[in-house]
Amino acid sequence: MHIMPEINPQRLISDLKYLRTIGKYGTGVVRPTFSTLDMEARRWLLNRMGQAGLKASMDGVGNVFGRSPNPGRGVLIGSHTDTQPQGGWLDGSLGVIYGLEIARSCAENPRTAHLTVDVASWSDEEGTYMSMLGSRSFCDILNLEDVEKAQNHQTAQPLLVALKQAGLAKIPTVKLDSDRYSAYLEAHVEQGPHLDAQGELLGVVTAIVGIRTFRLTFKGQQNHAGTTPMAYRKDAGTALMELVHVINREFPTLAGPRTVWTVGYVQFKPGSPSVIPGHAELLLQFRDTDELILDALESKTERIVQEAHQQGPVEVDLAAVSPRCEPAAMDATIQEYLAAAAEMNAPGKWIRMPSGAGHDAQILTRRLPAGMLFIPSIGGISHDIAEDTAEEDIVRGCRTLASATESLLRQANPI
Amino acid sequence: MHIMPEINPQRLISDLKYLRTIGKYGTGVVRPTFSTLDMEARRWLLNRMGQAGLKASMDGVGNVFGRSPNPGRGVLIGSHTDTQPQGGWLDGSLGVIYGLEIARSCAENPRTAHLTVDVASWSDEEGTYMSMLGSRSFCDILNLEDVEKAQNHQTAQPLLVALKQAGLAKIPTVKLDSDRYSAYLEAHVEQGPHLDAQGELLGVVTAIVGIRTFRLTFKGQQNHAGTTPMAYRKDAGTALMELVHVINREFPTLAGPRTVWTVGYVQFKPGSPSVIPGHAELLLQFRDTDELILDALESKTERIVQEAHQQGPVEVDLAAVSPRCEPAAMDATIQEYLAAAAEMNAPGKWIRMPSGAGHDAQILTRRLPAGMLFIPSIGGISHDIAEDTAEEDIVRGCRTLASATESLLRQANPI
Repeated sequence: MHIMPEINPQRLISDLKYLRTIGKYGTGVVRPTFSTLDMEARRWLLNRMGQAGLKASMDGVGNVFGRSPNPGRGVLIGSHTDTQPQGGWLDGSLGVIYGLEIARSCAENPRTAHLTVDVASWSDEEGTYMSMLGSRSFCDILNLEDVEKAQNHQTAQPLLVALKQAGLAKIPTVKLDSDRYSAYLEAHVEQGPHLDAQGELLGVVTAIVGIRTFRLTFKGQQNHAGTTPMAYRKDAGTALMELVHVINREFPTLAGPRTVWTVGYVQFKPGSPSVIPGHAELLLQFRDTDELILDALESKTERIVQEAHQQGPVEVDLAAVSPRCEPAAMDATIQEYLAAAAEMNAPGKWIRMPSGAGHDAQILTRRLPAGMLFIPSIGGISHDIAEDTAEEDIVRGCRTLASATESLLRQANPI
Repeated sequence: MHIMPEINPQRLISDLKYLRTIGKYGTGVVRPTFSTLDMEARRWLLNRMGQAGLKASMDGVGNVFGRSPNPGRGVLIGSHTDTQPQGGWLDGSLGVIYGLEIARSCAENPRTAHLTVDVASWSDEEGTYMSMLGSRSFCDILNLEDVEKAQNHQTAQPLLVALKQAGLAKIPTVKLDSDRYSAYLEAHVEQGPHLDAQGELLGVVTAIVGIRTFRLTFKGQQNHAGTTPMAYRKDAGTALMELVHVINREFPTLAGPRTVWTVGYVQFKPGSPSVIPGHAELLLQFRDTDELILDALESKTERIVQEAHQQGPVEVDLAAVSPRCEPAAMDATIQEYLAAAAEMNAPGKWIRMPSGAGHDAQILTRRLPAGMLFIPSIGGISHDIAEDTAEEDIVRGCRTLASATESLLRQANPI
């Protein structure tokens, strides 16, 4: 029998477009976690879940759940509705509205009404306070000390204060009941150029990269840029730039085909053209799905820092920045369900690929078999208001995830 | 006859220490140009000049003059009393109080009372609004357009507003009457390590370095640091660091023994560890007394920028930052007077040396024969509240400048 759940494309697109109006900023959205607009979006979602016949609730960290009245074992579909400081309209929201659309179209159809599809919108995937706060809480892997230390990177507001202001302080958190689910599924825009550049329509995610971030601090001696001879200088800025040159020379010999490394943040102090920097620092981040490669890059970084420090004249220090994310393989069986659904919905136009970005699925996979599906990002643009995807690609992605969901559930709950 | 003017060491030190109390900050001073405290210091100086029998006045840009009642041709001794945001107590103030002490000790002594010694405290040498504003105004080389554009680097307050608030807006500016002077003299702490490290007591300045500053702008493409493969990146930050590496490799082949170059300011945008910088910029400054070396460094910078731009993938742009300072040789005859006085006051313990820092003398030398004398900076520290010099070195410097002043004046005004 040909399984093709009848999702409602108009309703799907209409909900995505409505959600975009909450915090609309140009073509993108500004809805950082626990902001007034973020909470408004969560309440709107609760309401839409209720209208779909789901049991809707928000827990003590802002996770929004829409639970099917059916018993388990079901499938949990989730993503996030919080955004980057100036984010795209589909990043996160796509996966949540896919879940909502699949749950309600399943429930509407007598052929699938007995299947259990729950929906989750995880809080703070983007890390305004703590990256993947909601899914970490749900999977019960939150360290209380980290929660107490967490604060808004821009305003320094503590997470606990934000939770109180959002009215969540006294609401209990919901923990995973692993008997209820046979799988966790998440769909997302790719946020990279691979699908779009290669003309592919769908990506079945094989693994999510591990991320390691380090702060390198350079301590020299601030002095007058005119009167201090080159040989006397302890120039923290020069030491920083020369060290990054060595990293860029050495890392390619250890990198795999998909390894990426980035120096996204640099600061020189005091930052005057006529003063030799006495202090400099940078953040170095690298990502790969292969833990051995991450280990090799970390060892190499340690060695480069050590050599620069010993050589002088500037002191160099290396410190890991938490939290470190381990690479997360997606479940092999779920990959096959997603692959079969992709082949059905985009014959010959889909690929298997790792995810270079972090996602809540990398947390959920520690507790449940998990899988992810990507749809194309136009131009590979993400974390920018210019992020976009063609409507037909959005609809195709939802149909594909619905196909995989139904196959998975029928296999787990044979009639 | 042995010429040794009798300066008053106690009075000299006492005035320097009093001036330090106006805006005292730890061991240093905070007295940025046209601040309340800066204006208080100028009024105190006016008062001290009057007590010394000088005709004291402040002009429309804040220059403070103390003129001898004697006719020309005399000597003008000057420096500045404004400070860096957190400056040392001697930077500038030393040279002004030297002038005051030499003028009044000359006037007190019947043997020298007929000699003409004028004193000037130039405004904004440190460039809170425009570097060397006062001496530029006095030498009539101010560009009106630059004055209208000039603003406080930290507060963005326009210079013209600051002049109004300081009550200077309607006061005329004083221009140089070159018939009145045979020479301009300026003493200063070295602000570098040479004298202190070599155990020398005095430095006769041969030339003041030229300074050229450039802004290098790198335009790439901001993108997600996880999902954008290395080969697809247009990383403005990496392009910046690799270009500085090339500069540090190439400049030594063109540099002289005293050439210095500095990257004191760097910025990456947006500056997040998980975002590839789409924009980066730096300020590159280099200094030498030799214009040919400056030309060679500038040509090399242009070539490096051009090659990086052509190679891509990041666009690189180079722009000169005004004002450019040309190297300024000190007058050869005045150097000989200063050398004779140095040998008398510190036999065998003085050297000839260039100045790596800019000074008002580099402006005055365009209109008058000019000379500079350096005294040691402990540890070579400057532009920092830790700046200091031993009292005996301060007194020796004043005696030396007084000797040179008297020799110069006796030669110009034979009895």
